[in-house]
Amino acid sequence: MTAIHPVILCGGSGTRLWPVSRRAVPKPFLPLVGDETLFEQALSRVAGDDRFAAPMVVAGADHADLIRAQLGDLPGARLVIEPVARNTAPAIALAAALLPADAVMLVCPSDHHIADSAAFRAAALAAAALARDDYLVSFGIAADRPETGYGYLRRGEPLAGGFAIRQFVEKPDLARAKAYLATGEYSWNGGIFAFRAGHLLAELAAYRPAMAELVAEAVAGGASEGGCFHPAAAPFAAIAGDSIDYAVMENTARAAMVPADMGWSDIGNWAALADALTHQADADGNIVRAGAADLAECSGVFAMTDGPRISAVGLTDICIIVSGDEVLVTTRAGAQAVGKLPGATHQ
Amino acid sequence: MTAIHPVILCGGSGTRLWPVSRRAVPKPFLPLVGDETLFEQALSRVAGDDRFAAPMVVAGADHADLIRAQLGDLPGARLVIEPVARNTAPAIALAAALLPADAVMLVCPSDHHIADSAAFRAAALAAAALARDDYLVSFGIAADRPETGYGYLRRGEPLAGGFAIRQFVEKPDLARAKAYLATGEYSWNGGIFAFRAGHLLAELAAYRPAMAELVAEAVAGGASEGGCFHPAAAPFAAIAGDSIDYAVMENTARAAMVPADMGWSDIGNWAALADALTHQADADGNIVRAGAADLAECSGVFAMTDGPRISAVGLTDICIIVSGDEVLVTTRAGAQAVGKLPGATHQ
Repeated sequence: MTAIHPVILCGGSGTRLWPVSRRAVPKPFLPLVGDETLFEQALSRVAGDDRFAAPMVVAGADHADLIRAQLGDLPGARLVIEPVARNTAPAIALAAALLPADAVMLVCPSDHHIADSAAFRAAALAAAALARDDYLVSFGIAADRPETGYGYLRRGEPLAGGFAIRQFVEKPDLARAKAYLATGEYSWNGGIFAFRAGHLLAELAAYRPAMAELVAEAVAGGASEGGCFHPAAAPFAAIAGDSIDYAVMENTARAAMVPADMGWSDIGNWAALADALTHQADADGNIVRAGAADLAECSGVFAMTDGPRISAVGLTDICIIVSGDEVLVTTRAGAQAVGKLPGATHQ
Repeated sequence: MTAIHPVILCGGSGTRLWPVSRRAVPKPFLPLVGDETLFEQALSRVAGDDRFAAPMVVAGADHADLIRAQLGDLPGARLVIEPVARNTAPAIALAAALLPADAVMLVCPSDHHIADSAAFRAAALAAAALARDDYLVSFGIAADRPETGYGYLRRGEPLAGGFAIRQFVEKPDLARAKAYLATGEYSWNGGIFAFRAGHLLAELAAYRPAMAELVAEAVAGGASEGGCFHPAAAPFAAIAGDSIDYAVMENTARAAMVPADMGWSDIGNWAALADALTHQADADGNIVRAGAADLAECSGVFAMTDGPRISAVGLTDICIIVSGDEVLVTTRAGAQAVGKLPGATHQ
């Protein structure tokens, strides 16, 4: 059995984690949970296990230096630099085109947190087995709350180690999310996939022929330079960007999912980060992630500062973030709106 | 009719307005309301009106330079430097001993805000008239809410321009404060007084003979230097400190009050400052006192920063203060507890 090829996608700006996540050093490259950055955690999750090959990292040129620094001297790691960002389908297709047709690729976002790496690897092995049978496999993240911020996967017929996907569901409203949770048939679509590289390209060619053609041109005209591949800019830039879900997963007849209950979080905003750090909370549910904070009569407060001391009185379920010349104070419920603040949008 | 002598007391550390009010530059010397500092406002309130003499300022040595800078070239102003802080009774007695016995002194804290200066001056004239008749006169501040943070004065028999004081009441609980407000007989004790200097000293000698004696020694042994008087340190330090209320007002048979409805606030904490600035609030009741703040889905937020931008989402009735290397976030209800935070107590 050949090794699984991790493909780590470094897109996403993480503006909802502003002011810590900024254009220059966005979310994947920050140590938000633990001492490693989320990107480093994505690498660690599959490192030192010969069932996994060295990773391929797909990213924009802006973050190449950060990525090289955080990759360190990881043997065999490859970097693919997108000339422009065109969403996940072209990024994944680039990686697929650079791998052997029979390689099984495990596509992982670089900006998620997974508490249980063993469960992740077990799900990856199950997904890889289905991918070798030319299923297009999505991880179905165990849903533990009626989340309205994610897409859902509805489970169909059982397959070996997983299920067919009966339905892809867009972000639901709260009533529908509650109903999904109650049935037990729905999982979150976490953006983690396994494909046989050649099969993914074949399916892409069927549903998005123009995209597949332009990706092939970009690879054919690209250049390698010291473990780093640069696709040709013109054809890649000509691609109409799309997500892998829209471009392929929702069209294929062979969509499958593997259940994954692995302490997953997309760390989508400050409230989500606070949730991921609940184990560090004090008796009042307060979490001081970094720096000094004096919290009086507070509960459910999340505090993080890169220097100035935070002092607080009487707060409930509030996040306080101090970074550089920015001070952010948000309710946990309002955390989703942080990305729309002037500070986050005008960087 | 001789002029009234304003005596401005610069005690009080203002720790509940930390982190803007700090040991080095405490509350009276900060421009909290408007462009002038509270101390400058206390001077302005009686300036340019020949019914008032030049002010005498009583303060600690730590703040002499600040006071000189803020006094500017005010003609005739005098500064009395307390060797140590001994509460209000010794400070007022020092001033009384340095004034002619027949001078009427108007004792004013330096860290209050009074929106209506004309009403203040009218009350001062009424108080001075009673003081010339050897009443010891307190301003009875019109109470507009059941405040539990102040002492109250209960009105007795009418006098010319005021009332005898029937009772001094310590800070009440909320139920009693509500009852006081309902009767209409009670005013707040705002710490503003008028005395004939010689009479105040005579009353002090009756009720606190040791204090009166030590003050007299401190004045007799003191030294003047360029408009600045330094009492002798040893006798002044030997005084057992006490407030003018305890030492004299609650003992005298001639306590009087003048009603004063003048937009008074002691700016006792951040919530009180926000209240004093209500006229600057936007349609959602948010006030940005200084610096830049982006407030989304917020109401009743008070924001003030000396540099970093403040961004906030979803907050209700919260004060956010950024000053130097400190960030304070408090509910309005919790503002009273700010002075007990480690940052405020360990400066």
